[in-house]
Amino acid sequence: MTKAKSNLQIDSARLWGDIFETAKFGGTPKGGVRRLTLGPEDKQVRDWFRTACEKAGCEVSVDALGTMFAIRRGRDMSKPPIGIGSHLDTQPTGGKFDGILGTLAALEVVRAMNDAGIETEVPICVCNWTNEEGSRYAPAMMASAAYAGEYTTEDILSRKDADGITVAAALDTISYRGADAVGKQKFSAFVELHIEQGPLLEAEHKTIGVVDRGQGIIWYDGTISGFASHAGTTPMPLRKDALAAFSEVVLAVEKLARDHGPHAVGTIGEVKIDNPSRNVIPGDLAFSAEFRSPESATLDALHEGLQKAVAKIAARRKVTINLEKIWRKEPTVFDTRLVDAVANATQELGYSNRRITSGAGHDACNLATVMPAAMIFVPCKDGISHNELEDATQADCTAGANVLLHTVLALAGVASEAKAGG
Amino acid sequence: MTKAKSNLQIDSARLWGDIFETAKFGGTPKGGVRRLTLGPEDKQVRDWFRTACEKAGCEVSVDALGTMFAIRRGRDMSKPPIGIGSHLDTQPTGGKFDGILGTLAALEVVRAMNDAGIETEVPICVCNWTNEEGSRYAPAMMASAAYAGEYTTEDILSRKDADGITVAAALDTISYRGADAVGKQKFSAFVELHIEQGPLLEAEHKTIGVVDRGQGIIWYDGTISGFASHAGTTPMPLRKDALAAFSEVVLAVEKLARDHGPHAVGTIGEVKIDNPSRNVIPGDLAFSAEFRSPESATLDALHEGLQKAVAKIAARRKVTINLEKIWRKEPTVFDTRLVDAVANATQELGYSNRRITSGAGHDACNLATVMPAAMIFVPCKDGISHNELEDATQADCTAGANVLLHTVLALAGVASEAKAGG
Repeated sequence: MTKAKSNLQIDSARLWGDIFETAKFGGTPKGGVRRLTLGPEDKQVRDWFRTACEKAGCEVSVDALGTMFAIRRGRDMSKPPIGIGSHLDTQPTGGKFDGILGTLAALEVVRAMNDAGIETEVPICVCNWTNEEGSRYAPAMMASAAYAGEYTTEDILSRKDADGITVAAALDTISYRGADAVGKQKFSAFVELHIEQGPLLEAEHKTIGVVDRGQGIIWYDGTISGFASHAGTTPMPLRKDALAAFSEVVLAVEKLARDHGPHAVGTIGEVKIDNPSRNVIPGDLAFSAEFRSPESATLDALHEGLQKAVAKIAARRKVTINLEKIWRKEPTVFDTRLVDAVANATQELGYSNRRITSGAGHDACNLATVMPAAMIFVPCKDGISHNELEDATQADCTAGANVLLHTVLALAGVASEAKAGG
Repeated sequence: MTKAKSNLQIDSARLWGDIFETAKFGGTPKGGVRRLTLGPEDKQVRDWFRTACEKAGCEVSVDALGTMFAIRRGRDMSKPPIGIGSHLDTQPTGGKFDGILGTLAALEVVRAMNDAGIETEVPICVCNWTNEEGSRYAPAMMASAAYAGEYTTEDILSRKDADGITVAAALDTISYRGADAVGKQKFSAFVELHIEQGPLLEAEHKTIGVVDRGQGIIWYDGTISGFASHAGTTPMPLRKDALAAFSEVVLAVEKLARDHGPHAVGTIGEVKIDNPSRNVIPGDLAFSAEFRSPESATLDALHEGLQKAVAKIAARRKVTINLEKIWRKEPTVFDTRLVDAVANATQELGYSNRRITSGAGHDACNLATVMPAAMIFVPCKDGISHNELEDATQADCTAGANVLLHTVLALAGVASEAKAGG
């Protein structure tokens, strides 16, 4: 078993071409992609992907939730493969890179190995996980969550979209309801390449983010009840203004997150005043809030801090604030051995890099609860994602794919190398 | 010309009975009234009112905007009458007192004079102004505004409701498009009794509010543009959170109003985030804001203070805040002689009282720009108005009507008194 040459590279032009070719399936006039999971455009890209994987010598199977597994054989087929890949579905006004880069780069890794005549000890499995985005069906990342045992397959199959169409029916319509039980395909490890979807790598001019953690999340639903009254006739001291109280909650969430920096974040993204009118003091409103941190203890502290802040605001302003914690997801701690493998590959390839926490959820975060997993980030322009303006450079995408290639080579072990790469 | 006995009283039971009888026209299951201007219920109450005024010996005329004028003759018919009254239309979920008390109390004043055999020097005119509420047609107080020359009659006649029905068509449908030009009916003065629609009289246990001013108003429409980005992947220092900036604007409006207390008020009643989502940092939002004060100079100071606060918030948070002043109404200063007449009547009747500023707009505020005008307030329960829960006591309503009676007697002058009241 020899070590693959560190100058072995994926075919940058081929990867880039695939990204733009698949972007036609659901392509939008603004250069983005609208490819809702299990819709006709998703079928198009799935068919394209299956053909491409088969052309690359892989055997493709599909599980009961439509997740696609393309196996490149290894020398020792008794060992579960190294899983690589991501997802091919997009947001309603999504971009060309979110999920797609990781899936097509995984395919490209296989092709690069084929071109270099490399046989690995352990097989490789290129994956396309169903419904990562969660736009058409809730929850997001449903297939990997079911794989990790968070939901039963039956539960997910019965979920309905806005038109009442079940996941089961949608899978049948596009002929991607596979025979294999969810979880049947085992893995030795899983590595996912993804755009950062945040601004850090770009701001610090780093090519590669070695992802060592995924943020834990607490979601809240809240309501504030003050008293709706006439904006002209109610003196300031007699008001119970729900919006003024809410404004203090917004700033409290912001301050708590800042005080627990640099990795904690806190956001209020939604507020709805009941029967709003320009000359009525808001009496009742509803809002959502969230905290994220890579540290479980920090999530605890943020939660406790918010409870205290909210109690103070409610008491001082004589309003009622209800804050319900509707979801808590513990931080993801990616496997040290795999993270080191990503770091080593990055180092050997000479790319500038930093350790980074994933702020968004990814299939790899779900899979990390049941197998060793890791992620590789590359920069995206202005940190923009879930947007038709989403962009990344060919050089960065290529670098990420190369890191994926060399991580996989290290993990899978090179059994034989017919010809030298580069 | 003799002075009417100070113990002359209106008939409390008759007034209270009228309030509940007319509340049937558009009465709601919750005890409120839904009587949109110029609708079928408004026609019912208008017909009832016309009959009642005629029974009380008045001659009723209607102007081109449907405002009803019921004249009780005076000794000197060369003098324009003292106008009294208010409006009979309500909010969609309105109460039994807003406007109605003032109109029915004016009718009751005429009846009380009839019962006491009093002839006044100057005639009296009981008024029902069309569309005070502004729920079906904008602007609110449209008939008195047109009377005061703010709008032409043609402009108002062409205004449409949500179903596209013009004021002209609505007036024709209920046969209340009168022959008289708007403004033809002249007045020596106008006095309006109204519920306070605020909490001050009740909180201070005062029966009568002697209204000496009406608040001036500035209305704003605002937008904030930050940058919408992923709540999980955007570190706190790199955010341009439009909602956090807005929260500071809300608190700045509140602080400015408090700092210019006790009479100034400031309110933000509406906010709408563009494409809100629980895990997206708000990028763009729109809001409205308003300030009110009885002093023009205070309105100036509030406006200037808000400009400065907004500029600071925008600069510190690197967001764009646009704030457009869409309307400014100068404070109403009610006529000193009339305000004193209200105060004297209150004093003679022995009611507890305080000077008060009207926080809401009223027809009397419009009329004050073209004639001597004044208002009388009575408490309403918990300051609640524009609500089916709107409530006032029989004793307070009676007190207000008695103050109206004695104010009118003082202003109109008693020519003869056939029999003593009380």
